[in-house]
Amino acid sequence: MTSTYAHADLYAEVQHFYARQMQLLDARKLEAYADTFTADAEFAHTPGREPARTRPGILRDLHAVHERFEGDPQQRRHLFTMIDIEPTPEGPIRSTCYALIVTTRPGAGPELVRSCVVHDVLVREDGELRNRSRQVEHD
Amino acid sequence: MTSTYAHADLYAEVQHFYARQMQLLDARKLEAYADTFTADAEFAHTPGREPARTRPGILRDLHAVHERFEGDPQQRRHLFTMIDIEPTPEGPIRSTCYALIVTTRPGAGPELVRSCVVHDVLVREDGELRNRSRQVEHD
Amino acid sequence: MTSTYAHADLYAEVQHFYARQMQLLDARKLEAYADTFTADAEFAHTPGREPARTRPGILRDLHAVHERFEGDPQQRRHLFTMIDIEPTPEGPIRSTCYALIVTTRPGAGPELVRSCVVHDVLVREDGELRNRSRQVEHD
Repeated sequence: MTSTYAHADLYAEVQHFYARQMQLLDARKLEAYADTFTADAEFAHTPGREPARTRPGILRDLHAVHERFEGDPQQRRHLFTMIDIEPTPEGPIRSTCYALIVTTRPGAGPELVRSCVVHDVLVREDGELRNRSRQVEHD
Repeated sequence: MTSTYAHADLYAEVQHFYARQMQLLDARKLEAYADTFTADAEFAHTPGREPARTRPGILRDLHAVHERFEGDPQQRRHLFTMIDIEPTPEGPIRSTCYALIVTTRPGAGPELVRSCVVHDVLVREDGELRNRSRQVEHD
Repeated sequence: MTSTYAHADLYAEVQHFYARQMQLLDARKLEAYADTFTADAEFAHTPGREPARTRPGILRDLHAVHERFEGDPQQRRHLFTMIDIEPTPEGPIRSTCYALIVTTRPGAGPELVRSCVVHDVLVREDGELRNRSRQVEHD
């Protein structure tokens, strides 16, 4: 039974991690979001764009990406669902999930702007999950 | 390990609670939905509208809101995702999650009509979770 | 506590099963998707269309349905959320959840094409969950 309990426990933990992580991004708490990655992480969020590397590199990239919202106010929401996890013998957790991005602009209804598949490698540091890598495929 | 198991257990319970609660609302079982709130609950679902208070008050408010669907038949679906919970030392659980509202009218495809953030305070009564308060922010 | 742990465990297992199952369908791994049904399963995915029966019958039906995508390239995503499960005394698990279907065509943004309610009966075979039946209602 131990292994089954361990699975449920990890599954809930990954779901909860994603909820907190992406609520930080959507609230534009960019430093706190960057802290959910390891110091040496790699983050490829846009096909054809060079991945951001290291936590400071990811934070710089986040600021660059968010600058374009200055002239186009909007509330973005990242919804991660359909999470498939696979713990590896070496310890990292491979997680593959779907992400929908929904944007709402002032005075308008919500708009579905992107459907993605997210490929994560998660590791545990000081008891907390963090992304060692994230690669986002756009549909 | 106990605390970790307890976390997974509570996380699944909150997810399951939301699934049942919102399936009741979408099926227009308004009394059963109102029963998922405590007797003294406060429910603020629309910015600028006075919150509904007490279970009978919530039920009256639900009937008033649903009257407008009489002349505009539609199937609404409330999707709660990205659930972040925080048990407090006093017992209540603070839960913050995203809600999408999808509406389908006869002969038409589904429409994404609202993106929200839901702020709940959940308590346990007779072993069951209930909302002591719900405050809904619209994007 | 055992029963509570058992619930969280089963809830996570059903969520994970759906994630894997529907990622297979969306990747058009039709044989692997058909293998998530029992040999004698019944699958009614479209109102007014005869349900597919038995695993080979389900596979034939999947091929027939997917043929129409040959001339209309698109990436479909099935998102199952708001899962309500009810283990029965005889063993099967009744699961009722919401499904959104999102389609992205080359050069275009994602489109919400269908909102459904999925009624499943899940059973355990050789330790794995499988669908003994699936009935999909379209909104």
